[in-house]
Formats: sequence, structure tokens, C-alpha cells
Amino acid sequence: MKRRDNAEGLTILKLGGSVVTEKGALLTPNMPAIRRLAREVSDAGVSPLILVHGGGGFGHPLAERYGIKDGFREPQQLIGFSKTHEAMVSLNRFVVEALVEEGVPAFGMPPSSFTVTRGGRVASIHDEPLRMALSLGLVPVLYGDVTLDLERGFTVLSGDQIAALLAVRFEAKRIIMGVDVDGLYTEDPKINPSARLIRHLTLKDLEEVWGGIRGSSSTDVTGGMMGKILELIPPIKHGAKALIVNALKPGNVYSALKGELVGTEITKE
Amino acid sequence: MKRRDNAEGLTILKLGGSVVTEKGALLTPNMPAIRRLAREVSDAGVSPLILVHGGGGFGHPLAERYGIKDGFREPQQLIGFSKTHEAMVSLNRFVVEALVEEGVPAFGMPPSSFTVTRGGRVASIHDEPLRMALSLGLVPVLYGDVTLDLERGFTVLSGDQIAALLAVRFEAKRIIMGVDVDGLYTEDPKINPSARLIRHLTLKDLEEVWGGIRGSSSTDVTGGMMGKILELIPPIKHGAKALIVNALKPGNVYSALKGELVGTEITKE
Repeated sequence: MKRRDNAEGLTILKLGGSVVTEKGALLTPNMPAIRRLAREVSDAGVSPLILVHGGGGFGHPLAERYGIKDGFREPQQLIGFSKTHEAMVSLNRFVVEALVEEGVPAFGMPPSSFTVTRGGRVASIHDEPLRMALSLGLVPVLYGDVTLDLERGFTVLSGDQIAALLAVRFEAKRIIMGVDVDGLYTEDPKINPSARLIRHLTLKDLEEVWGGIRGSSSTDVTGGMMGKILELIPPIKHGAKALIVNALKPGNVYSALKGELVGTEITKE
Repeated sequence: MKRRDNAEGLTILKLGGSVVTEKGALLTPNMPAIRRLAREVSDAGVSPLILVHGGGGFGHPLAERYGIKDGFREPQQLIGFSKTHEAMVSLNRFVVEALVEEGVPAFGMPPSSFTVTRGGRVASIHDEPLRMALSLGLVPVLYGDVTLDLERGFTVLSGDQIAALLAVRFEAKRIIMGVDVDGLYTEDPKINPSARLIRHLTLKDLEEVWGGIRGSSSTDVTGGMMGKILELIPPIKHGAKALIVNALKPGNVYSALKGELVGTEITKE
């Protein structure tokens, strides 16, 4: 890593499953993207930094096959819990190793080992090792994972939820969501070619758009990212700046980490 | 797994680094031993069960190279922390996958994510997910790992320490130490061929042997296992039965799990 920049406060970088895995393929990491993004993270040299990645073709197909999200019904599912978690560990190793290759002291931390959910929402997070790792200069790398759940026995915890929760808890200054689209549009660009990319949005703007969506049940202008944006609202209310950037386009994550406006920015006011 | 046997209480099975890795080789799992032991664990079908394994040629050489045990001195060590942990994750994956192949719902849990040490001894262990995993029927698989340390920044946590600590905390009925020797001898069998394997030992017996060792500074009759045995004393005082068995000999771990006397047994009285 080239430099450290503690003045800005904590940055959380979430890389979607559609970024770090090959779309439509099973258990296939997108190695060119992972290596390039590791280089961008290293070049930007931002610290403190927490990285979170999604599951894509690693976690989701297995979680679905064994009905992990809906919780424990029968002992046969336990092996599915094991397999889903192991698939995510294997994806995490690709990401962590690429970062280490680029000199980033990445530290894989499975949420399943220190987080417990209740009905799919985080109920407790034992973050002492995570806090200590951060203050030492390590870069924790978390991911969407299975979790033990107080109501369901077990379930699935999304990378988006854990990223947003850590942003609130650690009062992150920025939460950068690396996805496979350029940001939020005024309309669905696949339907209306005159749709414009939104560069900046406040929570109030978002609520108006929201109202529109709810009222009319029209096209989801978030391009299927409504769940993601709902998770982002609490950290934004706590003062974090959220950025939705296309992490498949080289240089975007580097620029976002450097504080440039890429994609769509969402702020409190 | 063939059957479950909850009546006996918790069993902790520790497999030494000299059992699950190739002696003298770097980053080389002992796959025949790992596969065979996974089968023995599956055949014995003991539940609840926590498995802990050591580092051998995975964790130790890297930890040594970067001076991880002695703690943080300079930022360059952070990448060594990363590499040491990743090496242990990769070994853990071999163990967990072999267990899953045999139908054991193994669940890899890195101590570094939920344990903090002070001067190399465990200071806090956030065990909510571990407890929930156990009660659901999963088999947590922990290992010797790096940890964040309240005095040193970071350090190394041995598999023996975490195994013994969990045995005390969870009031384990049995702690089985799978090693590469047959047990404890009356004398060092390499020096004195008339040395006899000790089948049963009480803490009082042990203290007498101990006194002898301390007084005379003579040969370590534990065959270099003094550290291991010191860790075992607290769980034994808490009522756990400790067994030191040669896990490289096929069938021994199965027999030990089934409650047969293999190797050396150490009990409170």
C-alpha cells in the first residue's frame, strides 16, 4: 500500500458478488476483476478500511439449494450450511490473497464467527477483534455469509447488511458500493434510453423517488438495487456519504477511494 | 455421521499439527491422515463435538519468519499476520472439506475472529455463535491461529490453549489430544528402551512426575509434551477426562471417541 490517510475516518468498500464472481457460473471467481481491484485498493492506500464482498456464484446457489435463508427445518440442511460457508471462505481466500499480493495486509473475518442474527437481521456483533485489527492497520475483509440465527437456527446474512451495519457502528465517513452498473438512473435505462445517470441524491430526494415507486408500483428506477439502498439509509442518516459505482470499470474504485465523485453519490442533505 | 450420542456431554478433539500436516514440509497437508481421521470422526458419530487442529508446516514457519508471536514492532509485520492467518485458513479448509465429504457438518471458525489475547493468553472469547452452532448439531472446527493481543498488538494462539480453554468453559467431558506418539512414557523411550507407556495417570501422579522433572531438570518424560500437558491441567481439574493418543495410527481416534482407553488417560483422581 502506498500511503495512509487517517484523517478521513473509516471507509467501507463493498464489492458485489456480480463484481468478484463470474456471472452465471458456479464457484468461479472473476480473477481479472479481483486482481485489478486489489491493485486499485493498494494504489489508493486508504486507511482505515474495511472491505466486504458478496457471494455471487459461490454462496447463493448452495444457500438456495439447501434452503439456508429460511432457517433450520431438518438436520440434512446442516451439511448445506457447511458447504455454503466453505464456498464463501474459498471466495474470500481469492480476494484476500489478491490483496496480500498487492501488499495490502488483508485479514479475512467470517461474519458467521462473530455475528448472530434474529430473523435475518444482525442481533449481536462481537467486534472486539475487528476493532483491534483496524486500529493496528489491518484491512478486515468480511463477506456475505451464513449466520446462526436466534429465531431460525441459521440464515443468510447479506454483504450489504453487514457493510451498512458496520458503517453505522464504526461511524464510517464513506461507504462505497461497487456494483456492475454505473449508478442510479432517472429511469430504467434498459427501457428508456433517455434515462440519465443521477450524480447526486439526498435522502429527501430518495424519499420522493421512493414515494413514487410505492405509489405507482412502477418500474424500479434503482435497477433492482432497492434492497441495497434501503440498507444504505441508516449509515447515510448517521452522516456517511454513500457512493454507488461500477466496480467492473477499471479505475472507478480507485477514484472513489481517492474521494472523486464517480457513479451516484447519496448524502444526508 | 452415523449416530449421535448426546448423553456423554461435550467432546473436544484436538489434532496436532504433526498429524494433519506433512512433517518437515511447507504448506503440505497430510491428506491421507486427514481423510482417514474425517472418516473416523464420521464413523464414531459423537455429538456434541468441537474439533481443533494445529498448524504444523502451515502456520509455524510463517509466524516465525515474521515474528508474529512476539507481537507488533513494525508495519511490515502486518503482511506476515495476513499470510500466517491465510495459511491456517487453507489448512482448515482441507480438514473441513474432508469432514464434509464424510457427511460431518463441519463449520470452520477462526479463533482470530472471536478471540482476543493478552500477552499470549486468551483474554476474551465471544462464543455466542460457537455455542449456537454446537446446539444446532454443527461441528465447529477451530485451529491454532494468529490473534489480536491487548499487550502485544498481535500474537499466536496455540490450538492446545484454545482446546483446553473451551473444555473448561463448556465443561467438556473429554478432551482427546491426537498426537504423533503413543502417549506418555515412564521415561524417554528413545533413550531408554525399557520405558513403558503409561495407561492411566491422575493429576497427583502428574504432580509427582512434575516435581521430579523440576527438581532434577532431567529428561522431559513427556517427550516434549510438557506445554500440552500444562494446558490440560485446568480442564482435568474441571472434571474432563484427557486422553493422549497417537492419531497417526488408524483406528485410535475412532476408539478414543467411542470411549475406549487408547494411549494415556489423565483424570482428576
